[in-house]
Amino acid sequence: MAAQIVPLPRKQPEASIEPMLAITASGMNQVNQVILDRMQSEIPLIPALAGHLISGGGKRLRPMLTLAGAQLVGYNGTRHYKLAAAVEFIHTATLLHDDVVDGSDLRRGKAAANIIFGNPATVLVGDFLFSRAFELMVEDGSLKVLKILSGASAIIAEGEVDQLTAQRKIETSEERYLQIIRAKTAALFAAASRISAVVAECSEDEERALDEYGRNLGVAFQLVDDALDYDADAAQMGKDRGDDFREGKMTLPVILAYARGDEEERIFWRAAIMGHRSSDEDLAHAVTLIAKHGAVEETRERARHFAARAINALACFPDGKARQAMEQAARFAVARGY
Amino acid sequence: MAAQIVPLPRKQPEASIEPMLAITASGMNQVNQVILDRMQSEIPLIPALAGHLISGGGKRLRPMLTLAGAQLVGYNGTRHYKLAAAVEFIHTATLLHDDVVDGSDLRRGKAAANIIFGNPATVLVGDFLFSRAFELMVEDGSLKVLKILSGASAIIAEGEVDQLTAQRKIETSEERYLQIIRAKTAALFAAASRISAVVAECSEDEERALDEYGRNLGVAFQLVDDALDYDADAAQMGKDRGDDFREGKMTLPVILAYARGDEEERIFWRAAIMGHRSSDEDLAHAVTLIAKHGAVEETRERARHFAARAINALACFPDGKARQAMEQAARFAVARGY
Repeated sequence: MAAQIVPLPRKQPEASIEPMLAITASGMNQVNQVILDRMQSEIPLIPALAGHLISGGGKRLRPMLTLAGAQLVGYNGTRHYKLAAAVEFIHTATLLHDDVVDGSDLRRGKAAANIIFGNPATVLVGDFLFSRAFELMVEDGSLKVLKILSGASAIIAEGEVDQLTAQRKIETSEERYLQIIRAKTAALFAAASRISAVVAECSEDEERALDEYGRNLGVAFQLVDDALDYDADAAQMGKDRGDDFREGKMTLPVILAYARGDEEERIFWRAAIMGHRSSDEDLAHAVTLIAKHGAVEETRERARHFAARAINALACFPDGKARQAMEQAARFAVARGY
Repeated sequence: MAAQIVPLPRKQPEASIEPMLAITASGMNQVNQVILDRMQSEIPLIPALAGHLISGGGKRLRPMLTLAGAQLVGYNGTRHYKLAAAVEFIHTATLLHDDVVDGSDLRRGKAAANIIFGNPATVLVGDFLFSRAFELMVEDGSLKVLKILSGASAIIAEGEVDQLTAQRKIETSEERYLQIIRAKTAALFAAASRISAVVAECSEDEERALDEYGRNLGVAFQLVDDALDYDADAAQMGKDRGDDFREGKMTLPVILAYARGDEEERIFWRAAIMGHRSSDEDLAHAVTLIAKHGAVEETRERARHFAARAINALACFPDGKARQAMEQAARFAVARGY
């Protein structure tokens, strides 16, 4: 009897960030070294304040995208370490400014920088890190990378202003919301991912594919972040639960629950988004209404759609560890908090 | 009898900004057009807020330095218009953030942007303009210019943080104060001036000379700005008179008056800088003490020294309209408010 050959099935895709962490671990050590070196200054308050946030247990997802992308396209150089650090500095600068803008109390489960160091220092250290990011890019010397990241930075700022304009406006549409998160979050995910193809001198098509991967991943990531703020079942996140609610931010769970609510519910939402119903009981009521209409699950469903598009964008690259890790990370972005 | 030839004496140097305004007038029209074009955004709040400050009657001294420098070295191209606009955007971004940091009420004699539009929008539009500045530089495509201006931006932010650290500290020394204003003000004057030599592909020596002109002019300019905040004879400036005093900023007039004051005066200064004596009467008393010790005049004297160094830095360039205009501008920086 002939031996039967059973083909090894391709492993069932998992939702996990672990493979991405694994393939980028040694590279991230290099990136972290650049981050620590380049946040230094003769003005002691600068590394103190920057370090509070930078050492505060962030996931460093964005620089990780640059490193994973570089592996995907087989880049063997070292230029991407500095550029990944620049990406993280831009992100850190926007977080510092966000905390001032939102008047946040907590960030990543710790007191926000503005609470400890005050708004003035927080704004200025954000500016410093932003400038440092550009210095790192200039040292690398690619005008193409500079164009991508300066463009992304302008779009992020526009998205943040747009979000501010939509705040406390119950009539904000899903389209408007998507436009805001594409700008404020997805633009930097896209740029972080894209620049790996630039340093590796890939084709325009590959550059665009990595851009699309990052952009769709960023949208999925933000959707789930916004869902978790109202998810009764989710573990407490680093960000202060209910922040979006109290700030009157129009995120998709609220948009969906408002759209499906009856008149009594809509009266509640209008008052809540205006800031007239912001107690813990009001937040609990909001969570109940959102659960009643399945708005968290539907927000996750939207995220699933964007994660699928992110995964699809990788189709032009050869299968392998890097691509599988990036696919699993996209699934993880959707499954977080489950 | 032979006709006597009387040599025409070189015109007595005047302190005036008029010649600088005259030689840069047509170029500044181009720069202003770039500024107006590039502060636009689909998010209406951005041009509204940016325009409030940008149309608010600023002198646009920094981009003017780029244009004057370009004339000095005989540059005939057009690249400097975009770069001068980038310089003004960086400056505008820092002013917006300064207004948030200082909690200013007035800027250039009008309500400050943060008062009209709130701190959040003011921070974010500053970020937008800063990103736009880098986009303009990237479009120009000179890595050397990008290096100069990203470096200057990081130094400005460091200087601002350093100033924050020195605030309400009566023991701040004259050296520390000079270090702060070199960073927060003079670095951008130096960069604005230097990049004109870069676009014109001048020698390193000429680049350095223009850097020194701008740097010393910037120090002189800031010294006189700080003196005017306590000058009993000066016309009311755009900035709210007495702001430095109420914010406990350690500027040279205060440092000098404190150093020369008797024990009673020092007790007053310590209380005032700590913020315990900040009424209009206290400000009037501070102005009297500063006048008593000639601290405004001595601050101007220091400014005269830096203006002389600025003028001296131009010695390597041929005499002519541009150089004379730049010399007169340096004298004007000292004589302002007389």
